[in-house]
Amino acid sequence: MNTFNRLQPIGIFDSGIGGLTVVKEIIRLLPNENLVYFGDTARVPYGTKSDSTIKEYSIQNTKFLLTHNVKLIVVACNSASSVALNEIKSRTNVPVVGVIIPGAMASVTASRNKRVAIIGTNATIASKSYDREIHNIDQHIEAHGKACPLFVPIVEEGWMDHEIAYLTAKEYLHSLEKFSYDTLILGCTHYPLLKNVIRKVVGENITLIDSGIETAKQVKNILSDMNLLNSSEHKPNRKYFVSDLPHKFKEIGEMFLGEKIESLIKVEI
Amino acid sequence: MNTFNRLQPIGIFDSGIGGLTVVKEIIRLLPNENLVYFGDTARVPYGTKSDSTIKEYSIQNTKFLLTHNVKLIVVACNSASSVALNEIKSRTNVPVVGVIIPGAMASVTASRNKRVAIIGTNATIASKSYDREIHNIDQHIEAHGKACPLFVPIVEEGWMDHEIAYLTAKEYLHSLEKFSYDTLILGCTHYPLLKNVIRKVVGENITLIDSGIETAKQVKNILSDMNLLNSSEHKPNRKYFVSDLPHKFKEIGEMFLGEKIESLIKVEI
Repeated sequence: MNTFNRLQPIGIFDSGIGGLTVVKEIIRLLPNENLVYFGDTARVPYGTKSDSTIKEYSIQNTKFLLTHNVKLIVVACNSASSVALNEIKSRTNVPVVGVIIPGAMASVTASRNKRVAIIGTNATIASKSYDREIHNIDQHIEAHGKACPLFVPIVEEGWMDHEIAYLTAKEYLHSLEKFSYDTLILGCTHYPLLKNVIRKVVGENITLIDSGIETAKQVKNILSDMNLLNSSEHKPNRKYFVSDLPHKFKEIGEMFLGEKIESLIKVEI
Repeated sequence: MNTFNRLQPIGIFDSGIGGLTVVKEIIRLLPNENLVYFGDTARVPYGTKSDSTIKEYSIQNTKFLLTHNVKLIVVACNSASSVALNEIKSRTNVPVVGVIIPGAMASVTASRNKRVAIIGTNATIASKSYDREIHNIDQHIEAHGKACPLFVPIVEEGWMDHEIAYLTAKEYLHSLEKFSYDTLILGCTHYPLLKNVIRKVVGENITLIDSGIETAKQVKNILSDMNLLNSSEHKPNRKYFVSDLPHKFKEIGEMFLGEKIESLIKVEI
């Protein structure tokens, strides 16, 4: 028996603001859905924290989303997706989708020479979580990660079109050239905002995998399979919650989301 | 009665690697001193954590240094200096020196037009801790802070002489020009490594205040006052401890320190 209904919102959480690029893709693909977003801005970043702390925070965030009666949970955070997905799944009967597996799956499908490069934060690359998921799908794929620690602050400064962004992308991606990959995973929720500059550096022959887009597709598939897609014609309700309101959050958040944030509420978690 | 002796080491702690620029200045000024450094690399950064967490970690780090029988403690971390200095002082009879007050004092002495600019991480600038200490000394000084979040990753990539460093410094410091300051505090332990590029951007007429140098002077003054300067001719003993061994720590650490790290030990804190 299906205990959910179509009008229930999709819940999304991230350690901060980056998950809004995933929300953007969910809105593009599923414009009728009600959404509840939680950004744990008081405790960002997760990547530098221990596995047990990330699990603890992820459970707390999940409980918060469940109080909003969500029908599906998206873990729009690479660190939490990598470490806490099973822990979250064991606590709820709501379907749970992370950002790593959809990105890994898409890269395996896309790569013809079986060489996939991954760019991400220091923490994501050190965790090798994309490499692991790629090998779970196809152990013959060669995966190679490159940490790009300047990309997040460049995006948060809004310097995506600045020469600094171009030079930085050139510097990072140049060191990947000898790996001869044909597919590049943007393994951080901030990176889709740098897609133009990355494309300019790598040229037209590399397939860029945007985990946000792949995750949104996965969300649509699951809701469709469960007959839970919202077909209502009502204006959807999109609520944004954060655990802290840092300087410029709304401004940066709207840049990530590509639309206005109408309701932004600070909550204790 | 003085319970310390001259051969005891100076203890220094930081949330990570940046405090090594302070150690460098202490070594330059006090080459005979024995040193014990602790970098809390497992829990870096402190700047994004709550005051109570920063206090708790600072007390733990202090206790660790005290087990090494130190005669003075340097809090070579802006966040801990700003939040936990009194808490640390209340737990020990060993003198405790932070990095903010020496930098603030030097800026007040240096500024002739009474306009002091401060650059630092998002957390340091948001805390306004330099502004507060400057106003404690001279309430007529105008202080203005500018967060430079790209500087830390630029230094950790080793890109201090890259065009990216120059363009980034230009971008950040340009926005400070209208403030007409004559003194600029490098309010982050990573920034002394960018001194050349910052100097190139601001020109010769601005006094740059390096908190590491000022802190080292303060350490020398206190030890001299207490008659605790080590005049031994023996090769000094310098021990480096960390709570985690991140990728490239030794390499980056030696760049910060300007000399080899001979003994680096990971400890549980």
